[in-house]
Amino acid sequence: MNAESEFPIPSGFLCSGLIAGIKEDTTRKDLGLIYTEKDAVLGAVYTRNKFPSAHVQYCKALTPSNSFRALVINSGNANAGTGEAGKKANLKLASALADQLGVSQSQVFTSSTGIIGEAFPIKIIESSLQSLVDGLGSSCLDVAEAIMTTDTRPKLASTTVKSGDKTYTITGFAKGSGMIHPDMATMLSYILTDAPLTMNGIQSLTKKVANQSFNRISVDGDTSTNDSFYLISSNPMAGKEVIAPEIEKGLISVAISLAKQVAADGEGARHLIEVCVNGADSEESGEKVLKSVLTSSLVKTAINGHDPNWGRILMAMGNGLVDSGFEDNEPVSISIQSTPIFDRGEPVRFDRSALSTAMSDFDIRIVVDLHRGGFSVCGWGCDFSTEYVHINAEYST
Amino acid sequence: MNAESEFPIPSGFLCSGLIAGIKEDTTRKDLGLIYTEKDAVLGAVYTRNKFPSAHVQYCKALTPSNSFRALVINSGNANAGTGEAGKKANLKLASALADQLGVSQSQVFTSSTGIIGEAFPIKIIESSLQSLVDGLGSSCLDVAEAIMTTDTRPKLASTTVKSGDKTYTITGFAKGSGMIHPDMATMLSYILTDAPLTMNGIQSLTKKVANQSFNRISVDGDTSTNDSFYLISSNPMAGKEVIAPEIEKGLISVAISLAKQVAADGEGARHLIEVCVNGADSEESGEKVLKSVLTSSLVKTAINGHDPNWGRILMAMGNGLVDSGFEDNEPVSISIQSTPIFDRGEPVRFDRSALSTAMSDFDIRIVVDLHRGGFSVCGWGCDFSTEYVHINAEYST
Repeated sequence: MNAESEFPIPSGFLCSGLIAGIKEDTTRKDLGLIYTEKDAVLGAVYTRNKFPSAHVQYCKALTPSNSFRALVINSGNANAGTGEAGKKANLKLASALADQLGVSQSQVFTSSTGIIGEAFPIKIIESSLQSLVDGLGSSCLDVAEAIMTTDTRPKLASTTVKSGDKTYTITGFAKGSGMIHPDMATMLSYILTDAPLTMNGIQSLTKKVANQSFNRISVDGDTSTNDSFYLISSNPMAGKEVIAPEIEKGLISVAISLAKQVAADGEGARHLIEVCVNGADSEESGEKVLKSVLTSSLVKTAINGHDPNWGRILMAMGNGLVDSGFEDNEPVSISIQSTPIFDRGEPVRFDRSALSTAMSDFDIRIVVDLHRGGFSVCGWGCDFSTEYVHINAEYST
Repeated sequence: MNAESEFPIPSGFLCSGLIAGIKEDTTRKDLGLIYTEKDAVLGAVYTRNKFPSAHVQYCKALTPSNSFRALVINSGNANAGTGEAGKKANLKLASALADQLGVSQSQVFTSSTGIIGEAFPIKIIESSLQSLVDGLGSSCLDVAEAIMTTDTRPKLASTTVKSGDKTYTITGFAKGSGMIHPDMATMLSYILTDAPLTMNGIQSLTKKVANQSFNRISVDGDTSTNDSFYLISSNPMAGKEVIAPEIEKGLISVAISLAKQVAADGEGARHLIEVCVNGADSEESGEKVLKSVLTSSLVKTAINGHDPNWGRILMAMGNGLVDSGFEDNEPVSISIQSTPIFDRGEPVRFDRSALSTAMSDFDIRIVVDLHRGGFSVCGWGCDFSTEYVHINAEYST
């Protein structure tokens, strides 16, 4: 099975991607385009960081949209911390692409990812727009590659959904790696579908999908200035929000697959960590515990060392419960790789060496139970390795 | 100048420290004692982590105290996550030491630091109590060494304060290294003084001192289950709170010195980072920005690589400002090592290679200005190195 048949493009979309020369490594793609043949409906959520990039500021004002036609994405430069010059360059890009495509500027969206604070290379990008448009075709793979920075592989996910007597395609792609602790959405993520969605409902649907997927992953606890998640349907419907449950389920499953791929390919990651918090008295309190465990440097380094150091998990849980109604030392339970190691407040004897061996698997699963209520939440992260430090101590110099 | 004259013990105190055999490395001290010849006044702040150690739970109930006599401290075992057995062992320790000293159990405090979740070695400790008491003398150095875990050096600070016609001594010691992101106080820190303090005022004074010192440092963003900061005066005064400004100033200066020593000796640290946030519209908002910059993995790795990657500082500031009244992209300023690199919202041209060279100094100073108001706050952290990962991937196994 090849990538095109595994990740089919939904009807009504065309994509392209190429090497424009923005990245220092001129063998890697760095410019991509998503295009719809007719007006499409778009929802999006963006970073809450107070220094958003030029593209985030620009796109926020256009969201949601029921006349979307094109989204141009570059990697290698974030166009954040670039002041007025960065804003102007972003507008110039949108305007030039609109001219090229014969659509209006307000139908064109932009996304940027890469280093913060460097001047935006608008001339290099402009000179590639003609080739970018000429290359439009029925594959998502080129654009998925064009948005990569320190990612080691493209991230794609796809599913088909039967709704009524029709079958729809949902295909998404994302980039991740560093500065990943989404507080609305992962750095850059796009889900395309030909399933019917309405302008009225798309924004709340986009938030719902993000909250159950991208907002539950963390690589390094740092929220990017560029985080954006777009949901685009080439099948816009008029009227009020009507979203079939099977379509919503399909969208969430594609988003979770992408979120896990981002976590698994976190900078320097040797393990994908799934943390599930059971027995929470609310989704919010479960999520706080989840985030505290997923982001703890000490938990992440222990997993890097295949060390069943559950004391650090307990410590991280205790920090996530600060300001909750939880009493000191309420009895909780912890297991790693299905091995119970702390049971209702008391340590359990376990075979440390066998568990350490089981932790050499790529997939690590930590399950904790607060024994308080009926809410469960799961999220995803990665371990902390010396490679993470190497990658990030040497990124801009 | 030797350690005893540099860090003199305040009058009324005796200390000791020895090798009990709690640590695997039996060449390192692991048991210490602080003793007062008469009833002393004690204030303390403890971790807000919801799984506090047995010693924190026990001491909280005794705080504040105006009949303090002894505090026994062990390293090598945190007595946290140890369930009912841990609580019993802690009580047994307090009771045995009280018998040994001929004081009541409620006059005896305990502190533990080390690995979480291992059974507390009460028998080993009990068998060393006689020697510990016999060793009491006029030096703080042994106990400062006995509380070390992954610390590479003991941390002490001392000053004398003239108040009225008298001169008082303030001497403190602390341990740090990992799981350092105090949310009340650093892991273990003690300040002893013969300056007059009252039972009524000591608790608010202790909080004030902690807030301006230990609560402004971070090594790895993880708040320990054992964090405790004790302020003990051998010169208890009756009546309501009266604290001379010069005494308060002396206490804060000793606490800040200890806090900086803890940050500088963070696990794997190659740099002490001072971050100052100027122009904040409140102390609280300044502290949020401060903590966000100090704890950012990407800022910490950039400094490890001597990389003036100010975009990451901007990103961290933007995350610290979420939910504040700050508008997107308000003009802020950033300098590193006194070199301006971002000025009122616009990038500044600077000599990247010269600044990178300046960042090879041990002391790194980042100053940011929000240009919003008159509040300034400074705090301390350390860089993120591959050694941090090595240390923490291999700590318990």
